[in-house]
Amino acid sequence: MLMHCLTVRFADSASPAQIDAFRSALAALPDQIDTIVATRQGSDLGERATNAHFALVSEFADVDDFRAYLEHPAHRAVPRDGVESFQSVQFVVDK
Amino acid sequence: MLMHCLTVRFADSASPAQIDAFRSALAALPDQIDTIVATRQGSDLGERATNAHFALVSEFADVDDFRAYLEHPAHRAVPRDGVESFQSVQFVVDK
Repeated sequence: MLMHCLTVRFADSASPAQIDAFRSALAALPDQIDTIVATRQGSDLGERATNAHFALVSEFADVDDFRAYLEHPAHRAVPRDGVESFQSVQFVVDK
Repeated sequence: MLMHCLTVRFADSASPAQIDAFRSALAALPDQIDTIVATRQGSDLGERATNAHFALVSEFADVDDFRAYLEHPAHRAVPRDGVESFQSVQFVVDK
């Protein structure tokens, strides 16, 4: 199983509508991209001042399925106007 | 359920021993901190040039359990010498 872990910072100038469009588009991807095994996402709770604003954790069967996800038109179409920066990691786990 | 999502960059100067000490200490935490429901962690596969080096995804029953984790001596003792930067997000999911 491949885990895709994404942390995102939104720009100070990002509008609520831009942030919502980004989150909604990501949330819709499992219905559009069948290589996604599972996805969980959400906004930061504010527990640590250094935290980013949003995270997504998705699971894929393997690297090929993750690459198909990256290239998929629906993933490419996710509106990123409000995103200032992001940091991702993909790693393999046994289950 | 609270998801704790952490992405980590190691310093260029970090030694393999420092990186391994960090990863091993994190991997040992579930046996030392009983508020951790589940943890998955791993090194980045190198799929994206902008990626960080390592990620950890942990689950907690609620915010109080996550706070107990942060304050726990074993968590505080994780050796972070090789860590250049990290970015974390905690968010709530239904299950």
